[in-house]
Amino acid sequence: MRTATVIGTGLIGTSVALVLSTRGVRVHLRDHNSERLRTAAALGAGTEEPPEGPVDLAVVAVPPAHLTATLAQAQREELAHGYIDVGSVKGRPRRELEKLGGDLTSYLGTHPMSGSERSGPLAASADLFEGRPWVLTPTPETDTEVLNLALELVALCRAVPVVMDADAHDRAVALVSHTPQLVSSLVAARLESADETAVRLCGQGIRDVTRIAASDHRMWMDILSANPGPVADVLSEVAGELGRTVEALRALEAAEESQRTEGVEAIEAILRRGNAGRSRVPGKHGQAPASYDTVSILISDRPGELARIFADAGEAGVNVEDVRIEHATAQEAGYVQLMVEPSQVSALTAALRERGWGIRRQ
Amino acid sequence: MRTATVIGTGLIGTSVALVLSTRGVRVHLRDHNSERLRTAAALGAGTEEPPEGPVDLAVVAVPPAHLTATLAQAQREELAHGYIDVGSVKGRPRRELEKLGGDLTSYLGTHPMSGSERSGPLAASADLFEGRPWVLTPTPETDTEVLNLALELVALCRAVPVVMDADAHDRAVALVSHTPQLVSSLVAARLESADETAVRLCGQGIRDVTRIAASDHRMWMDILSANPGPVADVLSEVAGELGRTVEALRALEAAEESQRTEGVEAIEAILRRGNAGRSRVPGKHGQAPASYDTVSILISDRPGELARIFADAGEAGVNVEDVRIEHATAQEAGYVQLMVEPSQVSALTAALRERGWGIRRQ
Repeated sequence: MRTATVIGTGLIGTSVALVLSTRGVRVHLRDHNSERLRTAAALGAGTEEPPEGPVDLAVVAVPPAHLTATLAQAQREELAHGYIDVGSVKGRPRRELEKLGGDLTSYLGTHPMSGSERSGPLAASADLFEGRPWVLTPTPETDTEVLNLALELVALCRAVPVVMDADAHDRAVALVSHTPQLVSSLVAARLESADETAVRLCGQGIRDVTRIAASDHRMWMDILSANPGPVADVLSEVAGELGRTVEALRALEAAEESQRTEGVEAIEAILRRGNAGRSRVPGKHGQAPASYDTVSILISDRPGELARIFADAGEAGVNVEDVRIEHATAQEAGYVQLMVEPSQVSALTAALRERGWGIRRQ
Repeated sequence: MRTATVIGTGLIGTSVALVLSTRGVRVHLRDHNSERLRTAAALGAGTEEPPEGPVDLAVVAVPPAHLTATLAQAQREELAHGYIDVGSVKGRPRRELEKLGGDLTSYLGTHPMSGSERSGPLAASADLFEGRPWVLTPTPETDTEVLNLALELVALCRAVPVVMDADAHDRAVALVSHTPQLVSSLVAARLESADETAVRLCGQGIRDVTRIAASDHRMWMDILSANPGPVADVLSEVAGELGRTVEALRALEAAEESQRTEGVEAIEAILRRGNAGRSRVPGKHGQAPASYDTVSILISDRPGELARIFADAGEAGVNVEDVRIEHATAQEAGYVQLMVEPSQVSALTAALRERGWGIRRQ
């Protein structure tokens, strides 16, 4: 790939342009918002000048609502040999492009799985995609050269290509991304009118479950609007199971023992299936998170405490796989939880105790 | 308080006993499981010998199913002047004790909000309760001396006393703890039979939402069995809203524009209410988590990288408020997200860049 045009200089577009520019590709930037365009160019993402002839690859990185029109327009202009988009939904743009008379052989729908809570060119970074899955949705119609251009882009971004059917992709993100977002929002929404005393009892569990409920509601409205069917399908399954769980809980209060037993069995089944499903969520390097053990260390809020803990763990030869800070609610003390290989727990505990740290786990 | 008996030497009971023994209270331990009892005594939690006369306070720390019978039995024995339990549900034990003819003046229901994913005496720690809320549920009948014994215990444990009505407590934990647990399990359960490719697309969002789905299903069955009514009430509200969300998503695909507009409004309302509810969840020192900014730093898996980052942040005079490690899925690289006061973002970014770290945020 020698030349590219990136249309849309938000977070994803500017990040792609930064990677390509860094790797020696001549990148032309285009954005209807001239300030954003100037910012991206000033960051070194590419030139504001239009290309003289067709470029190798056009990357369309505009919001879902404008995606198909922008793609079709670029194809009418014969802007490039190959066209990809980087939107978070893949079935609808393809069908709409077909309706608009676009060329489906030179178009490939893609989705880099690297969101950020930030947006705009100033949040962009050439390493945004490193190690992340980047979904490609070729069809039998897709020109092999276009697929190869996309694979080259993914490789330059150091992302991991994952080939999927467009509709399977949309069902997958409905399951692993869009449904968790809505469920998190719904749980958080219940806190809106809760008593202050109830809110004070919030612990790490609800804190984790509701973290993404703080996401930008405009961005999520765009994403959900582009994928309503598959999200509704998953969500109605969750709603059905929730309804059955309510019934099972009511059965626990029933007078008849057989009903109570049924209730217990139903709730146990949900908790166990939750265990099983959770164990499939990939952790670091795709390993199941259940394979780590936690060591909790009491810390105060003095500067440098975290650095000292990590330095002490490092000296003990222990590789920390993950970390979580669990704060006390009403005073300055808190815990640092270090996740390590089970075989390293006793070495870490002993080493930290020796160095004067208070450890919760025996 | 000079003497106490702790009945049940699991995580909570042994931790309470460790605190009291450390502070000079003579603690008698009791457990029908003699091995667990010996372990707790060996850890220095107290003596296995029974007290000679009534102790000041009896702390009942047995599983919910045995709670009321154990309390009533202790009262019949005239084991203590005051009796508290530390179970996670408060309305039912009180009502059951009344039915069993127990004495409600010398009994106070309490709930220390300090769970752990571990259980048993070996996981116990004298600092388990530090800075955590400890709910007390006195009624007009409660003997003031018993309330004061409980307040003394909470103070010795360095926990923060929170007075609540027993039923209000049960509704509150249904909202902030039991419902999030079941919702997390239900979302995770949907992954049990998901395609491997879909599971590969899991990101930090679903990872957070489903973390507590890995919790011990037996322990949660006990907790939910003791609080079915309030949990069913909250969960059926969530189920109702989920159902309406499904309808709103289907409306986005409607032919009529007015229907589509209604769908958009309904979904936007949920996302916004999620934002509002989430902003009430207390973070560090009770501050809203939204008040911190995130700086993402690229790290490899080389030992000592975390220690170096924290040391560099410390040298730059920046106080790290929270930390999260966000791993890449398919290679060794990942990000460390440092949460800092917004005013410190540029200083931290500049200092880390200068020391050679790759920063995602501009």
